[in-house]
Amino acid sequence: MQPVNIGIIGLGNVGEGTLTILTENAAHIEAKLGFPLRVAAVCSRGIAKKQIALPTVFKTADWREVVNHPDVDVVVELIGGTGVAREIIDAAIANGKSVVTANKELMALAGAELWDRAIAARINLAMEASVAGGIPIHAVLREGISGDRINTLYGILNGTCNFILTEIETRGASFDEVLAEAQRAGYAEADPSADVDGFDARSKLAILTALAFGEKIIPADIYTEGIRRITPVDFEYAHQLHHTIRLICTARQTHEGLILSVRPSLIPQSTILASVRGAYNAVWVSGQYGADTFYYGRGAGPHPTGVAVVSDLMRVAREIRSGSPERVSPFAHANLGVYKPIPITLSKSAYYLRFRVEDRPGIIAQLATALAAEGISIDAVLQLPKADWRDLPFVITVEPATEQSIRAAIARMLELNFLIEPPLAMPMELPL
Amino acid sequence: MQPVNIGIIGLGNVGEGTLTILTENAAHIEAKLGFPLRVAAVCSRGIAKKQIALPTVFKTADWREVVNHPDVDVVVELIGGTGVAREIIDAAIANGKSVVTANKELMALAGAELWDRAIAARINLAMEASVAGGIPIHAVLREGISGDRINTLYGILNGTCNFILTEIETRGASFDEVLAEAQRAGYAEADPSADVDGFDARSKLAILTALAFGEKIIPADIYTEGIRRITPVDFEYAHQLHHTIRLICTARQTHEGLILSVRPSLIPQSTILASVRGAYNAVWVSGQYGADTFYYGRGAGPHPTGVAVVSDLMRVAREIRSGSPERVSPFAHANLGVYKPIPITLSKSAYYLRFRVEDRPGIIAQLATALAAEGISIDAVLQLPKADWRDLPFVITVEPATEQSIRAAIARMLELNFLIEPPLAMPMELPL
Repeated sequence: MQPVNIGIIGLGNVGEGTLTILTENAAHIEAKLGFPLRVAAVCSRGIAKKQIALPTVFKTADWREVVNHPDVDVVVELIGGTGVAREIIDAAIANGKSVVTANKELMALAGAELWDRAIAARINLAMEASVAGGIPIHAVLREGISGDRINTLYGILNGTCNFILTEIETRGASFDEVLAEAQRAGYAEADPSADVDGFDARSKLAILTALAFGEKIIPADIYTEGIRRITPVDFEYAHQLHHTIRLICTARQTHEGLILSVRPSLIPQSTILASVRGAYNAVWVSGQYGADTFYYGRGAGPHPTGVAVVSDLMRVAREIRSGSPERVSPFAHANLGVYKPIPITLSKSAYYLRFRVEDRPGIIAQLATALAAEGISIDAVLQLPKADWRDLPFVITVEPATEQSIRAAIARMLELNFLIEPPLAMPMELPL
Repeated sequence: MQPVNIGIIGLGNVGEGTLTILTENAAHIEAKLGFPLRVAAVCSRGIAKKQIALPTVFKTADWREVVNHPDVDVVVELIGGTGVAREIIDAAIANGKSVVTANKELMALAGAELWDRAIAARINLAMEASVAGGIPIHAVLREGISGDRINTLYGILNGTCNFILTEIETRGASFDEVLAEAQRAGYAEADPSADVDGFDARSKLAILTALAFGEKIIPADIYTEGIRRITPVDFEYAHQLHHTIRLICTARQTHEGLILSVRPSLIPQSTILASVRGAYNAVWVSGQYGADTFYYGRGAGPHPTGVAVVSDLMRVAREIRSGSPERVSPFAHANLGVYKPIPITLSKSAYYLRFRVEDRPGIIAQLATALAAEGISIDAVLQLPKADWRDLPFVITVEPATEQSIRAAIARMLELNFLIEPPLAMPMELPL
């Protein structure tokens, strides 16, 4: 049978991984589809230097030649960013070509708009690779559990952060030490901010929230806090509480509305989310009818992400063959007015508060007074048994309180003159 | 927009759950699809006594009236079994109607044939609910990771067995005791054989193997062993070895071919599969490119299984609207000759061997001789420190050996006159 023809733009890690799978796995792909996928064109800035084991493929350094190539049925955008990538996708849609992308940043920012254009142009758009590379979470939310009504979604969506946190946890190394190692090993970028400050995870949460709740989410509206302040001693205290610490992406429907956040959080060690270690990603979903389901896999890497791109290509190719363009946007299907994001200050949970102080009498009393003034009840005060307690942080856990009241209590504490640094506050006991 | 019309046959637990979701969640479903799903007809033997909150629905006790109803676009078969259910699906296909089924037994036995008929009749067939109710594992294998080439699949596919095993593990109760409790609580059937002897899990493994490897699998060809022999002391030994015990469904491609089995197995406590406790199901998949992914959720229950049925209905309704009938059977897509099931005797792994013996000198020497005669190396001999060792089983773990050689060694051991019961052999250290 006639193939569906593909043009790939961008031959970085994911582009190379995609090409490898399309080539090596061609027989399996054709057997599953009933027709072949053919790479008709590839584009890369350094195309002249690339070894491409496909003699008949059209090679270019100009993306327009791929988007305009008469043979290309599907354009694969793998260059990332929100500039040229946007131009490529716009041009492909204008040319009536379907698009597969791995671009989390662009889809988080402009997915709703691009989807509306795709529907108007009667083409197909797919973005499985944009979140949690190896985990087919888009297929799950779009089809697998589409009949459910999702209440809560928790994600561990940044493999670099999860790697750093589990290294701090298992080896007792500091954040800076582990980050430097990760950078030397190539797991973390020279500028690590997108990862360790939570912005990468935030884009992914925006996309997953759109898919799960059918609401257009503005990434900048999501409360985001990174992992730079997490120390080995925080894990010691967390373990005492039978918890661990992960960078948790939350989308949680409450009576008041939808709470969205990316922040380090304490999660019970008995939960399956706590078993996510190293550079893995995971998504935990709770639905009104299906209850809890959980999805786990590699978050990145040329081959896991390549599987997502190729699986999208197979689905889009099937849709093209059957003449089934996109009909409903996954970014705004609900329109039911029930999933309205509300400020993080309305979020309510138990909290872990960690303090570093100068040793003097009456510290606990003054901190307790600040909490009481905001109506917050103390659950426990924890102090690790170590010699030099002057430098040793201690912890107060509090019963469920709003983020607003915790912030107000911390503002009161910052007036006190014995704090070496601002208290570290992390939510705990997420409703699982 | 015009609805897609549904006829539901069978109003047991899953049928009731499906009806509830279609009714309560109708607005969400319509928002996601762009058109409504309408329940046009329902059939149940006890239809006269059923309360159905849909005034305009056609009600009957005769399934033929649903299959032949001019309004019905999709027939939902939820009666189970391989007799009438087969007639229903045959008749629906003959009438050119699409089919959604939750029937694991029938799909395991006749799925390949039914799929061929569905393709010939240009209708759609869907069976997400037939395996691991709440986990959308069909969507994952069919679409989410379809670009990968799967090497290994492990499943925990029977919630009753997993519940019983984790109760034995955490409470030290006996199999009989926990089974009786589960039966009183309605978690286990009066005749528990299908669950505890592994036959239910076997049907599910046959279906997942077909989806993952594109091979037609005959359930009776899968080596199957239940959990009746597992005792609290086995968990004590397993924990000493940093393992736990689960009923593991295996489909593993080796150099020799595809190994299929359902049997209690030791799995390392550090693996994510070991964190599956209680009545949950899970599937662990390892692909050539995507590496390992993991899926977890409720295995059964009216609502989780109902989500699977409704999600299938949404997909099939979309396909009907776009005129996209089934084109490639998930049961025989590979035809590549690489995934040929081979006898379990060729399976190779480390093993856990548990013995109950009459106390006398020279026991270990004679058992060791039997193992040595088959070329099997002992890894460790474990004996729990307890007072009355006469009644206390002990354990020998051995280095990787074939199932064939283990069986031959056990045959030699059965000649010895000090065994109180045949040794219990479980594979361990599955390649994860």
